[in-house]
Amino acid sequence: MKTLQTAIQHVRENNDFIINLLKEFAAIPSISTLSEHEADIQTCAEWVVQRLEKSGFENIQILPTAKHPSVYADYLHAPGKPTVLLYGHFDVQPVDPIDEWESDPFAPEQRGDNLYARGASDMKGQVLASLMALSALHHEGGGIPLNVKVLIEGEEEIGSPNLGTLMEEHKELLACDVALNPDAGIISATQPSVTYGLRGLAYFELWVHGAKSDLHSGLYGGAVHNPAQVLADLIAGMHDSEGRITLPGYYDKVRTLPDEEREALAKLPLSQAEFMRNAANPPALFGEQGYSFIEQTGARPTLEINGLYSGFIGEGAKTVLPAKAMAKISMRLVPYQDPDLVQQQLTDYLNANAPDTVTWELKPIGHGAPAVLVDRHTKPVQAISAALEETFGVEPVFKLEGGSIPVVGLMQEILGVQSVITGFGLPDDGIHGPNEKVHLPTFFKGIETLMHFFVNMAQ
Amino acid sequence: MKTLQTAIQHVRENNDFIINLLKEFAAIPSISTLSEHEADIQTCAEWVVQRLEKSGFENIQILPTAKHPSVYADYLHAPGKPTVLLYGHFDVQPVDPIDEWESDPFAPEQRGDNLYARGASDMKGQVLASLMALSALHHEGGGIPLNVKVLIEGEEEIGSPNLGTLMEEHKELLACDVALNPDAGIISATQPSVTYGLRGLAYFELWVHGAKSDLHSGLYGGAVHNPAQVLADLIAGMHDSEGRITLPGYYDKVRTLPDEEREALAKLPLSQAEFMRNAANPPALFGEQGYSFIEQTGARPTLEINGLYSGFIGEGAKTVLPAKAMAKISMRLVPYQDPDLVQQQLTDYLNANAPDTVTWELKPIGHGAPAVLVDRHTKPVQAISAALEETFGVEPVFKLEGGSIPVVGLMQEILGVQSVITGFGLPDDGIHGPNEKVHLPTFFKGIETLMHFFVNMAQ
Repeated sequence: MKTLQTAIQHVRENNDFIINLLKEFAAIPSISTLSEHEADIQTCAEWVVQRLEKSGFENIQILPTAKHPSVYADYLHAPGKPTVLLYGHFDVQPVDPIDEWESDPFAPEQRGDNLYARGASDMKGQVLASLMALSALHHEGGGIPLNVKVLIEGEEEIGSPNLGTLMEEHKELLACDVALNPDAGIISATQPSVTYGLRGLAYFELWVHGAKSDLHSGLYGGAVHNPAQVLADLIAGMHDSEGRITLPGYYDKVRTLPDEEREALAKLPLSQAEFMRNAANPPALFGEQGYSFIEQTGARPTLEINGLYSGFIGEGAKTVLPAKAMAKISMRLVPYQDPDLVQQQLTDYLNANAPDTVTWELKPIGHGAPAVLVDRHTKPVQAISAALEETFGVEPVFKLEGGSIPVVGLMQEILGVQSVITGFGLPDDGIHGPNEKVHLPTFFKGIETLMHFFVNMAQ
Repeated sequence: MKTLQTAIQHVRENNDFIINLLKEFAAIPSISTLSEHEADIQTCAEWVVQRLEKSGFENIQILPTAKHPSVYADYLHAPGKPTVLLYGHFDVQPVDPIDEWESDPFAPEQRGDNLYARGASDMKGQVLASLMALSALHHEGGGIPLNVKVLIEGEEEIGSPNLGTLMEEHKELLACDVALNPDAGIISATQPSVTYGLRGLAYFELWVHGAKSDLHSGLYGGAVHNPAQVLADLIAGMHDSEGRITLPGYYDKVRTLPDEEREALAKLPLSQAEFMRNAANPPALFGEQGYSFIEQTGARPTLEINGLYSGFIGEGAKTVLPAKAMAKISMRLVPYQDPDLVQQQLTDYLNANAPDTVTWELKPIGHGAPAVLVDRHTKPVQAISAALEETFGVEPVFKLEGGSIPVVGLMQEILGVQSVITGFGLPDDGIHGPNEKVHLPTFFKGIETLMHFFVNMAQ
């Protein structure tokens, strides 16, 4: 008889097959932010379609948007049972700095227990784990015991600019009881965790313009304000010496952490030494005074410089006084900050502080996303908690995630559903950086956990 | 009979031929700072050799150095007359930002009175003007009336790193009474000027390192100090709110401008409106308080950001917390600042101000050069003044040049000779920036001025 156990057994006996599928999936350079990869996005969407077909799904569609498409499919054979909407994304981050990769980011390479590739962890590994769990239940577990809809998008890494519109357009199609979002991670390979909060995001490009073209720094240096200098001055002023953000009103709406939550966070089994190792060993930690590193990365907002560009950055010397300078600036938001409001606060700051020797321009990149806070006492959260304990043999802890998953807010807003945030990335996976990897034993535990979750949710 | 006048007449009748030569010369992409252009540097050196051969020069040699070669030649047929060493450089600056050029920087294009090309003004135009002056005197002027040695180098735009060694090695060969350096400019097409001072240069790359690799700004942002933020903080602190440089001891050795010099500079026929036009119209001027824009660019030192780089600078969003950040920082020095001392002052500043959450590295790029101050009352300076007045019909004014010509200091130090600093670039030539051009009528006046100069020097 086919049961959850036979499905689990089947996955255990077919690890190599599944690893090869992950290699195939991760080899597609589906970088959503670079327009030259548009065809790869399409190829990747088609790859997902093929996997869904082989997993017993029906009604499979590539839904176009103004930019990159999403893939939809469903499996609705359990009348009376809840409907779970599985969310994922098949797009990935760019790969620069490319020279720091030890292997080609799009030629997945297994070294020891890890598979190295862009997207291996964020989140092709998670998408495939979810599809493999569903496929195993369908083929070897007696069928998926509840109703499942799948929405895998191609724009997450650029801030899901068209997902809201798509969800509005397909509100009926996407109707569900709860969303499952496996785009997060656990604390360690031996300590599962449930994410109950996510930070939001607001992302901008700030351009400072001086003269209309680059100038000779000898002929004009001293009398023309250097836009790179002005940009540095403006950035420097955005934090005070205690690591607090100086934008006017920035902390007004920030959620104060309740004492009991601070106490629980303080007990998370993550030492500072381990955190520093995961963070690629900076010389020392630094953050807003008065908060632990766990609070600083999960419960407090940031303003981060993601990129800087001005003038000549090639080899050697060029004595140029640049015409312009650019910074990519993003903010991680916590409850109850508002992306539009922080944009206004940044604008106010620039209006107050930019000198009249330059002009400036602030361009929002993508849509902002507010932070998310999940109720830990609902059935879906209990179902994932139990699934984690069943698979890992350890009770999960509850944590806050510093990253942003804008779709969680959209699902709440448009579909009116909460999300179960899970996923099996590890803190040292190096997502968004060079040498991204997935820990294969944890990846396989992820497949088993998700099978347990679907079964738990059907009960 | 062949005289100065027949030589001048000959040049006037052969403008098109000379413009075509300049196009040929400027079409060679001899960018010294980019290693992929090494072969172009060689091609360019050979082009100069060919011109020298056709101008009656002898003993023509390509002198190798540790990097790019120099070209030497001489014309020694006037025993008892002074020997002038003509200095020039055939290398050019890089061309970025390439998308701001209206025509290909290495496909010289004549538009109206101007010829647009990288190096058209700095300084292939000046080198060719000098060689054309000598060629005309040799072929059509009854011979060059004094002794001339020529040294055209290929490393000026990278700070002439090997020129000192080369001059030491060939001290005898290069022995002369005075150097002629036409790597400067005049105030306007109708107002000739003599440059009596140059600023020096010290150029650095400053690297700030945080974590060992790029991090996800969501997972680590808030607890890991962002190197781009630290770099901005450090740069911001290098100037005070009055535009003064804060490096410890920076102004200690700076020459105080005598009142009579300030008065003379105040009378230079360059309006602020004209300066702003030449400076590609920044929204407003900005510089050290208490000094005019002429003083700020000629007589006061600077600290300039020539380039900024960190993290992701491509299209769109990448939520990276960068591992490192870089600034190209150069200082224009005035008498009697010392390049090694300002490097020490910058190091002291960084030691005092860089936080221990990052590491940093300061790399000097090229050799520093001290500033230059020329005695206006010597024969060579009088010879060029007279030549300018004879050609332009207007008495030249004396000005300070904000740019740097390191070779002037080397010639003083190694060969024990002063330099006559001249040249026919105009303030709006756009040297080092996009759309560099040379004003052809002024270029031809330059040829005539140099012919007068050689004749004046022989008298």
